[in-house]
Order: sequence, then structure tokens, then C-alpha cells
Amino acid sequence: MTQNIYDNPEFFAGYSRLGRSVEGLEGAPEWPALSALLPELRGRKAVDLGCGFGWFCRFAREKGAAQVLGIDVSENMLARAREMTRDEAITYRRGDLEKLEVRSKDGAPFGLVYSSLTLHYVVDLAGLLATVHRLLVPGGRFVASVEHPLLTAPSAPGWVTSAEGRKTWPVDCYLEEGPRSTDWLVKGVIKQHRSFGTYINLLLRADFSITHVEDWGPTDGQIAAQPSLAIERQRPTFLLLAASR
Amino acid sequence: MTQNIYDNPEFFAGYSRLGRSVEGLEGAPEWPALSALLPELRGRKAVDLGCGFGWFCRFAREKGAAQVLGIDVSENMLARAREMTRDEAITYRRGDLEKLEVRSKDGAPFGLVYSSLTLHYVVDLAGLLATVHRLLVPGGRFVASVEHPLLTAPSAPGWVTSAEGRKTWPVDCYLEEGPRSTDWLVKGVIKQHRSFGTYINLLLRADFSITHVEDWGPTDGQIAAQPSLAIERQRPTFLLLAASR
Repeated sequence: MTQNIYDNPEFFAGYSRLGRSVEGLEGAPEWPALSALLPELRGRKAVDLGCGFGWFCRFAREKGAAQVLGIDVSENMLARAREMTRDEAITYRRGDLEKLEVRSKDGAPFGLVYSSLTLHYVVDLAGLLATVHRLLVPGGRFVASVEHPLLTAPSAPGWVTSAEGRKTWPVDCYLEEGPRSTDWLVKGVIKQHRSFGTYINLLLRADFSITHVEDWGPTDGQIAAQPSLAIERQRPTFLLLAASR
Repeated sequence: MTQNIYDNPEFFAGYSRLGRSVEGLEGAPEWPALSALLPELRGRKAVDLGCGFGWFCRFAREKGAAQVLGIDVSENMLARAREMTRDEAITYRRGDLEKLEVRSKDGAPFGLVYSSLTLHYVVDLAGLLATVHRLLVPGGRFVASVEHPLLTAPSAPGWVTSAEGRKTWPVDCYLEEGPRSTDWLVKGVIKQHRSFGTYINLLLRADFSITHVEDWGPTDGQIAAQPSLAIERQRPTFLLLAASR
């Protein structure tokens, strides 16, 4: 079962102070690349798996989405999302992604399933992807970001400075897939490590066609504006995935 | 232009002594996984891009392939391949994969394009993949292995032992794609580093459907038989790719 770390008060307080929590989508450096993978939203029914504070749900409505359903396991996140939203066409619902049952309001399937930085918490990803496929209309799109396999692999993640002053990312355990306990905001956050190939093959086995895959790192422009991002070009931070049913 | 390092006498002598050169396919630990991606060969016309000593060409004929064409840039490799082959249905031809022009004997396209550990030498991979697509019948298969992006990325590839005795692989420069000069058998072997996403997206843009992707590492059984392979599970050695036209 997926850990619900977002309802840990200390974690939630820390998470709430991150750029992406305060500024929304524009505070997430991968957003320009991720949003470039989205289909035309006008008239589309969308669902956001791991909707958090609802930033994407509100964005989708601004872009003309017909209906948006945001699902999250965290009551804390959903309460904040509801506070920030005044829109009858957005519904927030508590749901465990391991046993997801969702339908759009009129029973018809969705044109887009979106998920940002959530799938690496899900234990039964094969099961979730089968559900996602069932939720989509033929030709419907699935767009997701996950923590990059290079981030989740190491037994001791963290930059290492060599004798020559070079910063490198120490990869080990890459082929040992499964849970990783890391300290991020609080101790003992559980994420699931999967290889590149596993992400792709799970999508293929769920009968998706892959349309784009991207090892995300900051652009030159982003680094100029925020020099601390430069190190993220040494190894990618996120894996962006786009597929269609 | 792709470097033709296989016609460097010192490199060729070293390469000729490797397990995969002496023992053929069975001397390559990734062969069981790579061969599992092959379609039924009986009656199929196949081409091997970077055929080396012709081990795969002869294997394909043993499995009933109708015709096999082996292409390599190295005269040394082709001379050895011809010495080892007595089969009218196998043709070896010298060719630069950057400007490939091949047709099967009767002008009809191929049912399989295979390429083992060759594409990471090719500078214009987009151009080559467009050619591969053109060579295949509809539904034809493309099966390839490359050095894994984690191998080609680092500015200083090589295992690092931490103070605690842990061996890690020092990743940097991952998002800086392009040539890497490494010392392997001789100094200054030029390989092209590409990210995982780039390999996938180049295949998609050449209009292939991806069917399987695998970060290859040794199995438990292989490690039991050859314990020195164990470290390769810390980070994958090869990326295996299967796609269909």
C-alpha cells in the first residue's frame, strides 16, 4: 500500500513552503516541458491523479477543459485545494491510487489523465496503468512526470564531490527495483524505484502507445535565472512520459 | 562522421580477444535477453548493421532466415567474417552507417534489422533510423542494443569506492549529449552519448512503434556462473530496444 506521507503534519508543513506549493505550476521548473506534452484542453474531460493543491485542475479549466476531477490520497492537500477553488466544473475526491475507481460526471471516459510526481509513490503501478487505460477514450492522452530513475536508484542519494572538485551523482542498486526510504522534508519517505525500461514496458503492457519520453533538466534560460539549478543538468531530475490510448 | 576504430590494428587485436569475439553470441552476457526480443527468423530477410565477425548473420541462418546481409565499416571485421562463413545466403558488405544504401537481393525490403552495440558510434542516428524504417516491410522488426546512457554519460567513467566501501558509478554530464572520447582497448575511442529519452524519441520520430525497452544487467544465474558480473547490477550496462514498423 502507498504511504500517505502528505498527511504527516511535519511533511505537509515543509511541502507547503516549496516553490511549487506557493507559486503553483510556475514554481515547478519542469512545468514548461511537461505542459508542452499536453493535448488541447478545450472541451476535454481531465483527471489529475495526485492533484495536491489543485493547481493543474484550475489550469486545465482556464484552458477550457469541460470538467476536471482531482484525486488525492491526502485530506490535507484536498482541503487546501477546495479552499483555493471556486469552480463547479472541478471536483476533488479522496482516493487511493492503488484501488482507483473514478468516472467522469456523466459516466463517459476522460480525454486526458495527468499525473505529476505521484506515480513513484504507487506500489502497484501495473494495476493503476490498467485503470488509467480504461478511463481514457480511444485516442485519449496520458501525461505524467515521475522522479527520474537516477534519483530513486541510489542507496545513498546525494551529490559527491571528487578530489578534483567534480560533482557526480553516485548510482548504485539501479537494477534492484522496489521501495526506497529517503529523507526528504521528514525521515522515512517511501518511494518506489523503477528502471527506465520498466516505466516504458508497464505502459506498453497496459496497451498504451508511447508518444514522448524526456529526461528532464533545466534549460539554459532557467539556469541563467536561477543558477542553483545548473547541477540538475549533470543527471536528470524527472522523467516525463506521454502516451496515448 | 563515425570513427572507424575497428580498423585500428591495436584496437582490433584487443577486440579479437574479447569473450564475445572468441565465443560469439554465447560470449556476450546480454545475448539471452537480446535474443528474446527477436521475431521468428524462419523465412525472414535480415540485415545486421555492424555485423562484426558475422556471428549474428550465421545464427540467423541457422534459425532459418531466408537471406542475411551483414554490413560493417571495418575491413578487418568483414575479412574475418568471410573466413568464418560458408553460406551463399549470407552477404557481407562494407558500408558506412551514416550513408547507408542497402537492398535485399531481390529488391524487397527486410523483415528484421538487427544491430548490436553499434548505434552509439553513429553520429547521425536520426538519419540512420529513417533508413532502417525504409528498409523494413510493414510490421518488420528492429532489435538493437547500445551502450547504456549511464555508461556513456560520465566525464570520467569508472567505479568509485566510497569511504564505506560501497562501489558507485559517478554520473555527470548526462544531459550534455554528443561525443565522448574514452579509453577502451586503445585511447580515444569516440562514442556518442544520448539520453534514454533521445533514443526513444528518435525511434518515435522515425515512425517506429516501441515494443520493449530494457536496462540490461546480469541475471542471478549469470552472476553465480561468473561472479565478476555482479557489479553490473549496480548500473545497467546496455540498453536493449525493440520496435516495429
